Amino acid sequence: MSVKLALIGAGRIANVHADAIVASRDARLVAVTDAIPAAAESLAARSGARVMSPDEIAADKDITGVLVCTPTDTHADLIEKFAKAGKHVFCEKPVDLDLARAEQVVAIAAGAGVKLMLGFNRRYDPNFAAARKVIDAGRIGNVEMVTITSRDPGAPDISYASRSGGIFRDMTIHDLDMARFLLGEEPVWVSAHASVLVKPELSDIGDSDSVTVILETASGKQAVITNSRRATYGYDQRIEVHGALGVVDVANHHENTLRIGGADGYTTAPLMNFFMTRYLASYAGEIAEFIACIKEDRAPKTTGADGVIALKLANACVASVAGGRRIAV
Amino acid sequence: MSVKLALIGAGRIANVHADAIVASRDARLVAVTDAIPAAAESLAARSGARVMSPDEIAADKDITGVLVCTPTDTHADLIEKFAKAGKHVFCEKPVDLDLARAEQVVAIAAGAGVKLMLGFNRRYDPNFAAARKVIDAGRIGNVEMVTITSRDPGAPDISYASRSGGIFRDMTIHDLDMARFLLGEEPVWVSAHASVLVKPELSDIGDSDSVTVILETASGKQAVITNSRRATYGYDQRIEVHGALGVVDVANHHENTLRIGGADGYTTAPLMNFFMTRYLASYAGEIAEFIACIKEDRAPKTTGADGVIALKLANACVASVAGGRRIAV
Amino acid sequence: MSVKLALIGAGRIANVHADAIVASRDARLVAVTDAIPAAAESLAARSGARVMSPDEIAADKDITGVLVCTPTDTHADLIEKFAKAGKHVFCEKPVDLDLARAEQVVAIAAGAGVKLMLGFNRRYDPNFAAARKVIDAGRIGNVEMVTITSRDPGAPDISYASRSGGIFRDMTIHDLDMARFLLGEEPVWVSAHASVLVKPELSDIGDSDSVTVILETASGKQAVITNSRRATYGYDQRIEVHGALGVVDVANHHENTLRIGGADGYTTAPLMNFFMTRYLASYAGEIAEFIACIKEDRAPKTTGADGVIALKLANACVASVAGGRRIAV
Amino acid sequence: MSVKLALIGAGRIANVHADAIVASRDARLVAVTDAIPAAAESLAARSGARVMSPDEIAADKDITGVLVCTPTDTHADLIEKFAKAGKHVFCEKPVDLDLARAEQVVAIAAGAGVKLMLGFNRRYDPNFAAARKVIDAGRIGNVEMVTITSRDPGAPDISYASRSGGIFRDMTIHDLDMARFLLGEEPVWVSAHASVLVKPELSDIGDSDSVTVILETASGKQAVITNSRRATYGYDQRIEVHGALGVVDVANHHENTLRIGGADGYTTAPLMNFFMTRYLASYAGEIAEFIACIKEDRAPKTTGADGVIALKLANACVASVAGGRRIAV
Repeated sequence: MSVKLALIGAGRIANVHADAIVASRDARLVAVTDAIPAAAESLAARSGARVMSPDEIAADKDITGVLVCTPTDTHADLIEKFAKAGKHVFCEKPVDLDLARAEQVVAIAAGAGVKLMLGFNRRYDPNFAAARKVIDAGRIGNVEMVTITSRDPGAPDISYASRSGGIFRDMTIHDLDMARFLLGEEPVWVSAHASVLVKPELSDIGDSDSVTVILETASGKQAVITNSRRATYGYDQRIEVHGALGVVDVANHHENTLRIGGADGYTTAPLMNFFMTRYLASYAGEIAEFIACIKEDRAPKTTGADGVIALKLANACVASVAGGRRIAV
Repeated sequence: MSVKLALIGAGRIANVHADAIVASRDARLVAVTDAIPAAAESLAARSGARVMSPDEIAADKDITGVLVCTPTDTHADLIEKFAKAGKHVFCEKPVDLDLARAEQVVAIAAGAGVKLMLGFNRRYDPNFAAARKVIDAGRIGNVEMVTITSRDPGAPDISYASRSGGIFRDMTIHDLDMARFLLGEEPVWVSAHASVLVKPELSDIGDSDSVTVILETASGKQAVITNSRRATYGYDQRIEVHGALGVVDVANHHENTLRIGGADGYTTAPLMNFFMTRYLASYAGEIAEFIACIKEDRAPKTTGADGVIALKLANACVASVAGGRRIAV
Repeated sequence: MSVKLALIGAGRIANVHADAIVASRDARLVAVTDAIPAAAESLAARSGARVMSPDEIAADKDITGVLVCTPTDTHADLIEKFAKAGKHVFCEKPVDLDLARAEQVVAIAAGAGVKLMLGFNRRYDPNFAAARKVIDAGRIGNVEMVTITSRDPGAPDISYASRSGGIFRDMTIHDLDMARFLLGEEPVWVSAHASVLVKPELSDIGDSDSVTVILETASGKQAVITNSRRATYGYDQRIEVHGALGVVDVANHHENTLRIGGADGYTTAPLMNFFMTRYLASYAGEIAEFIACIKEDRAPKTTGADGVIALKLANACVASVAGGRRIAV
Repeated sequence: MSVKLALIGAGRIANVHADAIVASRDARLVAVTDAIPAAAESLAARSGARVMSPDEIAADKDITGVLVCTPTDTHADLIEKFAKAGKHVFCEKPVDLDLARAEQVVAIAAGAGVKLMLGFNRRYDPNFAAARKVIDAGRIGNVEMVTITSRDPGAPDISYASRSGGIFRDMTIHDLDMARFLLGEEPVWVSAHASVLVKPELSDIGDSDSVTVILETASGKQAVITNSRRATYGYDQRIEVHGALGVVDVANHHENTLRIGGADGYTTAPLMNFFMTRYLASYAGEIAEFIACIKEDRAPKTTGADGVIALKLANACVASVAGGRRIAV
């Protein structure tokens, strides 16, 4: 029997998720809602879903899960609303920029007995997931040092940046979750540096564009994250995990596999330049996970609690930069 | 307005093409037929098409094109039938193993004024196509030497091999077409060697599993093809084009982008092991081309005539091995 | 006219330097001294040098330069002795583990009007030097973030480690110098984490084996260093410099260029496992620089002052780990 | 006790060999001769050897081996002279361009009981030698197909080309020997194509600049060689050996290990552009082999007989191009 789902929001990422649901043999997209009626109607038309209001979706007995794909500041209220209505909830990160509110809605979802899955999509990237399996299989021994490089092709608009919670809560948070995923042990100390090298206007709103973070676990494992809001060569997304017996890394995705040689040397293509192209498989993977955990009645691999921990780490980064100190988490 | 298409055959490759048609915004799959009714019904059910007989398809005024995805020995008759019915025809290679019959149906299609596109899918691989663009842009200068390496993970069943026309007409033919695509000039001389190193039973039916071919054009450009029916490391598909000003090559596709280092060195994944996985994008590309050339009323990039030339080159390979001579084409 | 040189010490690295001097057309090795007479005699026999005492070398008017290749705790006194004797001095890093003493001998050498070159050999590696030239040529624009990965194949003996000044002053110091070389701007802030994951006995002497460091310059450029005293896959030595217009990286050196493919994937060789093999060209390069700067009467590219700054940065790393703070340098 | 050697010829390659002899702990260069006295004197001065006449060298009881590094047309006479004088002979390829004369001097050397080593230096390249060891260790199973790509950065002068015996005997001959080395079984059939694409003047002297060769052994193993006298991207030297259980390849040597990324993609360095730089280690290796086989009184790994076989294969290539036929060897 198909899992019946509704999309809350009909923007860019909602359309990506709609494709994944339509392609699934285990789910059906039955409803979509959006503050902009035309957006909802367009998505509905091409996917076979109906346009409904949020209240209608909450009240619909057939719908077992919703995907919250709306602006960040609406996440908490929508999770609360649909959790109380008994719907399983998939939500794009973050739950909320305010830690207390995020913890509150995680508790609400738990109390309501529904699943709350958070969209840390990168864990579902086939290559990063394969790296985790290599670690689990013991091929590199005890994990000692994790290196995560993540650079965006360009800086966000100031209007977006000012609502985003800052680079640590908006961009680094994905890498903080990835560090947890790869370390296999919780970080207890955080040191961070941040500066503005790319977009001077970010200084005016107290944000940064170039940051480095060290995470350390209780047993002394370390993870290093470097982020930049600029990379002329494309969307730079790499991990490396060094262990007692070896090392595993995941390379970047280039636009093609050509190599051209000439008098000036050999040239290969730049990196895929857009997160939705680079992470296409991971977006499909997270939707498959949401459907599967509903079908199999099990907890998702990335929960609201993971969102809370990542937010705490991001907050620690902010505090470390401000205080010039290593911060205990 | 959508191009309305029918699938003749409902096997493995027909299902791949059905997905491409369903995903297209410019075409609709309206009919499917197969000698095995259950296969046709299953494909129809999941794609929204109707099961029809070949005659019904031929007679249906709404259907403008058909895709022939049946066994090789039925291709010529089906092309003839549907061409005469005024349908544009996409056909998997080869048109026919008999050169005269192949030339005949190409002429029939031309006489009927319909497009006959042949499924040399590799030309639509984004990487090979990009290599062609690099050449066209003059980045490597005048093409001088082409190297094509093509190795299957394993040898075919004897039953398949005995109906296939032999390795040159079944496997090398793809590389012969690719050589033409990359040389940009017709080969006029062919030398070939062939041996049985993988599957001794192939000797019994006069076939080979390990072959090398040299093609030479009138201006002296050369192409080398090496084929094997065995590759433990996956489906090996590489090209390299050396020119007066430089070189361009296309690398293999690995199963993932991991690299694992340890005391014995660094390991990367084997190659994608299945032609439908490796060439997924090229299959989608050729269907997009068929739809586009109907919509835009233009000739397809790979026609029945290309199939005839590739077959002539394959026949020349057979003759070269048999006669120990360079063969003029 | 040849530059006449003397080797102070006849151990492993002295022998490497002797080869470089013998191969040079601009210099001659005329004397060697060592606390172990047999070592000095052996090196003298194979290189054409004479065994002399340190005092004889200091008094010899023909000798214009000496290379100090003795244990760390003798460096400062030997530099002082030979500088006062008017000899140019090449010294393996560090000048001294005590910052005040290091600054003192740098001042003594300056006062004596002799060149004091410090053996930060990696700056003379052809690949790292080429990376610096790429930066100088403006190809990656303004430098923003430097990543240095440096892992030894194995941990040192405790007896060595206990005299080494600890991992930051013994191992990281090379990377701190490399960070300065690549940043092109002095670090003013340092944060470091350190733990013992490889060799538990290091805890007993207050040392570590796994460390990460963030350096930040006044303009906000950042460098990240990760070090481990363990790497099963060989001697791991990589740099990456990300700038406003691009990125440049230098890859590891593998034992050979083979790649072996099979059912489990593709394997390449482990990394060169020994610093003298990996950095053979850089050792030759630094000796060539010492000879050239004597011949051309110019300052060496790596001076005693560079050793002092790197030591300050190493001390800041120690202080950051101890105090849990970002340290101003 | 040191092996005492003499250099016959004092040109470019003789100087390379002189360095290898001087660096050896098992040999001494005692004499050098050259038609140009200044060349001999210059080499003698820097290496500690004496200038002697060919007759003096032949008569000198202390000299046990000579290295013939003179123009090709003098090889046979010099081998004969020194073999009859009881000296072991190392000779640059070829023994002679005339097959009968080559066979004759090989017989003379055998009759005189001296070793005749031929300078097929590439077998001593550490990477190609390692590939052979991988094959011997059974890691790729039974060898099935060998691919050798060899491209010179530029075409030779017509004056050189006209004395060289043509591309097959001058350039391809190295690859023919490499094919034998990697196949581990003698080729019995040869097919070749040749054309002039690079330097039109080569047509006037009946030579070519772009050739492809197929070799086939009695058991059906195949080797493919592609040669060009042009490669803007450097000196292209690659091998690949495909076997029943896997594949091994040896990559090209680039000028450095940098990679530069930017908006147009990633660039790596061109290939080392000069055969003496690319094959530096193999030249040292062949001299070490010559010294070792004298010292250990054993046959060299590459003998005059190997030269004869390679020449027969080169002649077969010429015959195949001329006759349009597969040639039996």
